[in-house]
Amino acid sequence: MADAIGIKHYKNGDTFEGFLLIKSATKGTTSGGQPFLSLKLSDATGDIEMKFWNVTEQDIANYTNGKVVELKANVNEYRGALQLQMQQIFISDAAKEMSAEDFMEKAPVSKIELQNEIDETIFNMQNDAIRSIVRSFIERYNHEFFVYPAAATIHHAFISGLAYHTVTMLRIAKSLTAIYPDMNKDLLYAGVILHDIGKIHEFTSATDTTRTRDGNLLGHIPIMASEVKEVAKELSIEKDSEEVSLLQHMVLSHHGKPEWGSARTPLIQEAELLHMIDNIDAKMNTIGRTLEKTRAGEFSEKIFALDNRSFYKPLI
Amino acid sequence: MADAIGIKHYKNGDTFEGFLLIKSATKGTTSGGQPFLSLKLSDATGDIEMKFWNVTEQDIANYTNGKVVELKANVNEYRGALQLQMQQIFISDAAKEMSAEDFMEKAPVSKIELQNEIDETIFNMQNDAIRSIVRSFIERYNHEFFVYPAAATIHHAFISGLAYHTVTMLRIAKSLTAIYPDMNKDLLYAGVILHDIGKIHEFTSATDTTRTRDGNLLGHIPIMASEVKEVAKELSIEKDSEEVSLLQHMVLSHHGKPEWGSARTPLIQEAELLHMIDNIDAKMNTIGRTLEKTRAGEFSEKIFALDNRSFYKPLI
Amino acid sequence: MADAIGIKHYKNGDTFEGFLLIKSATKGTTSGGQPFLSLKLSDATGDIEMKFWNVTEQDIANYTNGKVVELKANVNEYRGALQLQMQQIFISDAAKEMSAEDFMEKAPVSKIELQNEIDETIFNMQNDAIRSIVRSFIERYNHEFFVYPAAATIHHAFISGLAYHTVTMLRIAKSLTAIYPDMNKDLLYAGVILHDIGKIHEFTSATDTTRTRDGNLLGHIPIMASEVKEVAKELSIEKDSEEVSLLQHMVLSHHGKPEWGSARTPLIQEAELLHMIDNIDAKMNTIGRTLEKTRAGEFSEKIFALDNRSFYKPLI
Amino acid sequence: MADAIGIKHYKNGDTFEGFLLIKSATKGTTSGGQPFLSLKLSDATGDIEMKFWNVTEQDIANYTNGKVVELKANVNEYRGALQLQMQQIFISDAAKEMSAEDFMEKAPVSKIELQNEIDETIFNMQNDAIRSIVRSFIERYNHEFFVYPAAATIHHAFISGLAYHTVTMLRIAKSLTAIYPDMNKDLLYAGVILHDIGKIHEFTSATDTTRTRDGNLLGHIPIMASEVKEVAKELSIEKDSEEVSLLQHMVLSHHGKPEWGSARTPLIQEAELLHMIDNIDAKMNTIGRTLEKTRAGEFSEKIFALDNRSFYKPLI
Amino acid sequence: MADAIGIKHYKNGDTFEGFLLIKSATKGTTSGGQPFLSLKLSDATGDIEMKFWNVTEQDIANYTNGKVVELKANVNEYRGALQLQMQQIFISDAAKEMSAEDFMEKAPVSKIELQNEIDETIFNMQNDAIRSIVRSFIERYNHEFFVYPAAATIHHAFISGLAYHTVTMLRIAKSLTAIYPDMNKDLLYAGVILHDIGKIHEFTSATDTTRTRDGNLLGHIPIMASEVKEVAKELSIEKDSEEVSLLQHMVLSHHGKPEWGSARTPLIQEAELLHMIDNIDAKMNTIGRTLEKTRAGEFSEKIFALDNRSFYKPLI
Amino acid sequence: MADAIGIKHYKNGDTFEGFLLIKSATKGTTSGGQPFLSLKLSDATGDIEMKFWNVTEQDIANYTNGKVVELKANVNEYRGALQLQMQQIFISDAAKEMSAEDFMEKAPVSKIELQNEIDETIFNMQNDAIRSIVRSFIERYNHEFFVYPAAATIHHAFISGLAYHTVTMLRIAKSLTAIYPDMNKDLLYAGVILHDIGKIHEFTSATDTTRTRDGNLLGHIPIMASEVKEVAKELSIEKDSEEVSLLQHMVLSHHGKPEWGSARTPLIQEAELLHMIDNIDAKMNTIGRTLEKTRAGEFSEKIFALDNRSFYKPLI
Repeated sequence: MADAIGIKHYKNGDTFEGFLLIKSATKGTTSGGQPFLSLKLSDATGDIEMKFWNVTEQDIANYTNGKVVELKANVNEYRGALQLQMQQIFISDAAKEMSAEDFMEKAPVSKIELQNEIDETIFNMQNDAIRSIVRSFIERYNHEFFVYPAAATIHHAFISGLAYHTVTMLRIAKSLTAIYPDMNKDLLYAGVILHDIGKIHEFTSATDTTRTRDGNLLGHIPIMASEVKEVAKELSIEKDSEEVSLLQHMVLSHHGKPEWGSARTPLIQEAELLHMIDNIDAKMNTIGRTLEKTRAGEFSEKIFALDNRSFYKPLI
Repeated sequence: MADAIGIKHYKNGDTFEGFLLIKSATKGTTSGGQPFLSLKLSDATGDIEMKFWNVTEQDIANYTNGKVVELKANVNEYRGALQLQMQQIFISDAAKEMSAEDFMEKAPVSKIELQNEIDETIFNMQNDAIRSIVRSFIERYNHEFFVYPAAATIHHAFISGLAYHTVTMLRIAKSLTAIYPDMNKDLLYAGVILHDIGKIHEFTSATDTTRTRDGNLLGHIPIMASEVKEVAKELSIEKDSEEVSLLQHMVLSHHGKPEWGSARTPLIQEAELLHMIDNIDAKMNTIGRTLEKTRAGEFSEKIFALDNRSFYKPLI
Repeated sequence: MADAIGIKHYKNGDTFEGFLLIKSATKGTTSGGQPFLSLKLSDATGDIEMKFWNVTEQDIANYTNGKVVELKANVNEYRGALQLQMQQIFISDAAKEMSAEDFMEKAPVSKIELQNEIDETIFNMQNDAIRSIVRSFIERYNHEFFVYPAAATIHHAFISGLAYHTVTMLRIAKSLTAIYPDMNKDLLYAGVILHDIGKIHEFTSATDTTRTRDGNLLGHIPIMASEVKEVAKELSIEKDSEEVSLLQHMVLSHHGKPEWGSARTPLIQEAELLHMIDNIDAKMNTIGRTLEKTRAGEFSEKIFALDNRSFYKPLI
Repeated sequence: MADAIGIKHYKNGDTFEGFLLIKSATKGTTSGGQPFLSLKLSDATGDIEMKFWNVTEQDIANYTNGKVVELKANVNEYRGALQLQMQQIFISDAAKEMSAEDFMEKAPVSKIELQNEIDETIFNMQNDAIRSIVRSFIERYNHEFFVYPAAATIHHAFISGLAYHTVTMLRIAKSLTAIYPDMNKDLLYAGVILHDIGKIHEFTSATDTTRTRDGNLLGHIPIMASEVKEVAKELSIEKDSEEVSLLQHMVLSHHGKPEWGSARTPLIQEAELLHMIDNIDAKMNTIGRTLEKTRAGEFSEKIFALDNRSFYKPLI
Repeated sequence: MADAIGIKHYKNGDTFEGFLLIKSATKGTTSGGQPFLSLKLSDATGDIEMKFWNVTEQDIANYTNGKVVELKANVNEYRGALQLQMQQIFISDAAKEMSAEDFMEKAPVSKIELQNEIDETIFNMQNDAIRSIVRSFIERYNHEFFVYPAAATIHHAFISGLAYHTVTMLRIAKSLTAIYPDMNKDLLYAGVILHDIGKIHEFTSATDTTRTRDGNLLGHIPIMASEVKEVAKELSIEKDSEEVSLLQHMVLSHHGKPEWGSARTPLIQEAELLHMIDNIDAKMNTIGRTLEKTRAGEFSEKIFALDNRSFYKPLI
Repeated sequence: MADAIGIKHYKNGDTFEGFLLIKSATKGTTSGGQPFLSLKLSDATGDIEMKFWNVTEQDIANYTNGKVVELKANVNEYRGALQLQMQQIFISDAAKEMSAEDFMEKAPVSKIELQNEIDETIFNMQNDAIRSIVRSFIERYNHEFFVYPAAATIHHAFISGLAYHTVTMLRIAKSLTAIYPDMNKDLLYAGVILHDIGKIHEFTSATDTTRTRDGNLLGHIPIMASEVKEVAKELSIEKDSEEVSLLQHMVLSHHGKPEWGSARTPLIQEAELLHMIDNIDAKMNTIGRTLEKTRAGEFSEKIFALDNRSFYKPLI
């Protein structure tokens, strides 16, 4: 585990000794021609920058994205932000045994809690085919589902982000089925749980969201639509089952429009609603995280994923 | 009041005697050159078509959109649909005293219930400026707000549609503020209540949604943004009050994007959420009303307001 | 079989006696209120219109799209076009035994010839995984593949259209791999053969191109991408085989852009080329069929599928 | 006042002593890690760059955008452009008493002349309601209207730009009403005068075009539409006056299309014409200022506001 | 010449005897199967409809678009509009000698006046190359230029519309060069005069705006750009003359953007201005003609060419 | 000629002595304020970077884009790429006599071969007018046509690129006319040969693809359409010849859509096909050149001209 206090709590003049994760390592060259690395280091509480001057080829090969390092450094203020001034760095044996996940931000709700809420939802499903398909997926990806982030950079880009996004959407879905009682609950909740599971194949790992070959060539939506059918076959659900088609449709259409990456447009009301719930949670998470860094009475930094808008944080 | 049974319950071979509202009257000419009127007649239970043959210029002037008529007619089946075959029609004194509203479809919730939910929401608002502005609007349009439809043709196009749409949106808003606790409740609920009040100026009356001069030249959004400022001034709320700006912004931005008729894009999180809640309720109401007329296992008629999609009604 | 001469060869004043297929049956009503059917009747040589006056409800139920009828009628000219004036119509036992396919337009190349060209192409493939997947599909849909049309209305909308479109595309693909030798031949030819096979699930039957439930909810592209994976599994091709991903990608991206219905954009050069070859053959077939009906020196009717353009047929 | 000669007239090797305005101050860091400020300094004749090396935190806080400074510096040529090499800088008492406006570029026509042309136009208006509303606005913003720029960066971005843009548009409007006599002169001229007054609320001040809170949340168009109504009420013009609606419409629609920031599309001919006149003057001013810096026979720098086009300056 | 009074002045119950032009002739069929022609007949004052019942094939061949007919008919009112009830129709020798132009609407300014204004503008040009090219075009198309309409259906769709549109644009151009003195007058005025001359090749004739083969295949813009070069060569203006390129550029870019049919975007300020002047005159003419048919206080019919907007005609 | 081995074959530690072409020369300034030049130097085998430190104004004037230089320099590795470290540079008399063309990349097919294939195609044309026009162009631009590149940066951006692109397109065209026999061969092949000849006027020279004045103001498409007419006139082909119009149409429409720079949309089938053939060859050349630099199993750099896609290079 990272230092108990966490990098976020250090102040100008402090000395840091402990472990941090390399989130990114970018090569640069001084005007004098010397190579250096700009490292972004993190633990679960936050990020800090550090320059690693006069690096060798070997250093560049060692200190890469995803490695945990052991480190001694001074904390300085530079242009209004804190940074580390390196004294010592190495990849100790202790560091090698640590898990990158432990140095990353996590969802604000525990895995157990997320798991319980998913399980209970599945348990209460009435339709046998839907329930068994959804359960089968959660069993198949029992580890990954509760560790992966929901997106690479924009929303829910943290450990357990996928499950946290899913559970938040389930809560919205449940309040909406109370308001719109004609909705098929099983279908809607199953759509919520399944819609982004394909990201487990799209990202390289829970801590590295670089896209895989199939993430690029196929995309999480067609991968998942195909896997729904495969799982149904394994469960001996009949070939032309309406449930299987509907679940595939929920997955295929949840981005809403072709130009937003949807393979189909929603053609059942549950699919239309799924798309809107997904939208709400993605946007509210993105804006919320940005406003946390904004002072009341001011406009935030521009948010690329939201048409580059700056959001205002009211004083009231 | 229309016949207690309601036009929807008549069958082929019945005779209708009673009152109906002219919802539309369209002139036609037979291939023999004779003028006639195609009337769409309604009561609160539904619509029926009737031809009025050999009309005079006087008839055309009398039997217009919005009039209640007294009528005797046979109910016939023609190309799979029922229609009336006219025997007698006149605008009796009894008809003149009736209210068009009573012959139109109504929201499935009573005015009292809608009113109570609105009032309670306002009563619980913490911010004085916001509460007094919203209350002032509900008092000012105490009659209209609970009678107007929310749209001319697409969603909530029935008596009390505006208040019903508003109350449904409030329910969604309340469940979402429980999920996203950083939301400013007063601001969001006030935005929900105020967002469409300008339609009272945009439509000619609760039973005639033809656009007024100002409905066309100004539109309900700028009309309402202007009126929020006017009301704030009457209530002696200070000129540069953040609350007034925020409420105006909620109204101005609730259509989301300029190309969807929004005068601003949402720049506070409550405005972004208001837009999405409005979207959900408008779409769910539109799809829901269409699926009511669709058989399970089939695709609905195309819905123009939803990119001309046909929605599927599952068998499960 | 339809009359050996074929409906296209009848002239004003002739009498037709024989069998025709009902391609479409549309209900109408005379100004006097009498119901009738406008029938579009065809054999393999062409179409002709016929009115069926004073139809009963029973007639409407019997004489539907896809039925073969036995018929006696006069051939008349009306507004510059020939039409049939009905004398007798019935669905005889002889008619019931006939196949709708025999009364529809066919590809200008025989099934045998198409089959040989496909088989030879598969035989010459070097890559085992690709060859066995493609062969498996052709065996699985051995009948359908050589009977289905390639589209409902626009291009290759005739019996064997799918196979004819595929073979023409193969010919183009082969000439282009000679010009661009870096192309992977197996991959490109496999993409050509597989790209539209999903239409077999999208259309109700070879003679009825109404979309099925899954044709609407899933679409031929995701259906096929999923089936490629399923077939690969049955053939015990390893799970992460690059070949399977590449073939799925060819299918998913062959419409080029999301707004043209593509689930992915092409990301390998063979996929980009497949899209362009598909485009060439679809457009040339559409324009060619329109120009056949256009006089030299004049502009054709507008072609909806080609941005509503009128094409000019040169005199030279 | 700035040095009588003006910064534009200095040459390589000269020494500057006097006052200049800081138009922008940007922090930088040398490769050796030392902070510095890049200052853009101006008087009414033009701009010049100067580096302020080795700045303290206090310097960064003092030397900000909008301050007038007293300064001694050498004029040097660097990469083909002149720049100042600082010897001494301070914010003297004399500097503090100077007005930023005096160090900025001004419209090429005097305030008096602009004022006279506006007054005469208002004096000649026939319609009482229109004349009194327009006069009321000019009295209310008598100072600001003749000092503010018309835009932040693109066109008429100089002192009195708003009034100069307005008067130029009035001249165009007057020549067009001679050509199109059906135009309502009062309405068109009133639209010209009022259309951009809301920018007084949108910009922080005449010399600082940063957007205000309401400039962002509401925008100059809805602000102004609302204020037209408020002024009409103060003048006791009747509530449903057509004149008030028409003036509001002129303001709301003058950007032409929603995607260009218009709250309404123009629905009266005077509004359509207002939009086109605004366009002409904005574009001609933008191109004209760019061509001033371009040599004959060459293409100008790219103009972002005009679709990034480079304009050619002919030799003839 | 058409009847001195003009068709516009006839009333219900009158009898018309005289000559009219067939503006359009559309075939129809009665519900009884009888062919008829719907004729739109005109003289210079306006249009009227007439049915020609029971036509023969010969009639259909004779009574076509562009023919002048001699006619006796009653004037009746039908559905609020006047129409003619035919008694006698024939193409008399007198009719054959008449010119279709005389039966069409004309520009409100005489040819002589238009010609003088064009000539004077050319006479005052300073640049020899520009003046001689423009003069050469006006001489080459001395008849056509003063007879052709400027468009087929939208704006200035009347005899002399091209010259009238040109002269109105010249008036605007002259008032704008007074306001923007940096404009090159010769270039701008030449651009105005030449910009639409290619329509003489695009339309079949002054009275028949059906597009020619080259009107379709090439379009008036490339045709004209090519002809400018040809004329310059005939005048022995040197090959790389800047004037010729600039004039070609004015023609090529006058539609502003590619999606509006422009072969280039404007890259000189005179071209940008030409586009905007063309726009003003086209739109003002279109709106003006529509508002002539609209009552004050009402909204006009929708104008397709202006994004389907309905324009309001104020009461003031 | 450049060094026989070619710059591509040098390794770290080698010394280069010989001639190279300056492909681009960009001024920079060190953080110490010293001016330098970043040179991109090339021969026919490839490019290499070199810094030229402490340059004088005279050096900047001498060492410009397009010059051949004589040079002695060490080959070093820097950040994974080779670069030259300058020892001596001068523009020797030997260098002045060399041709820039010889230091640039060339088409992979010889000029003679390209010329033969063009000539044979022209020789086989049946239509006299088409053959004589095309031959006339090849004679007129006999040198340029076989030297110019086909584009500035994207596809076929090398010596003889224009002819190579043309010949490759001819091969595709010939294989397609075998598949679609209704195509007019002469028209299609003529369109292929003529379509990009206007680029000879658009680019400054074969080795400098900066756009000329007319390249910007007119563009290669209208320039060429105009020249086709001019050549036809010189050959005394009759004025309204369909052939001339068709050839002009081929040129005007070969970019397909207005938003892609097309002056017309294709309205003959040969023009539609020409556009698609052009597209295929431009895209295949662009992707092919990018994949040459990509390792199997990886994704390429993003290709701006192809919607910024990264292409995958399969392992199979």
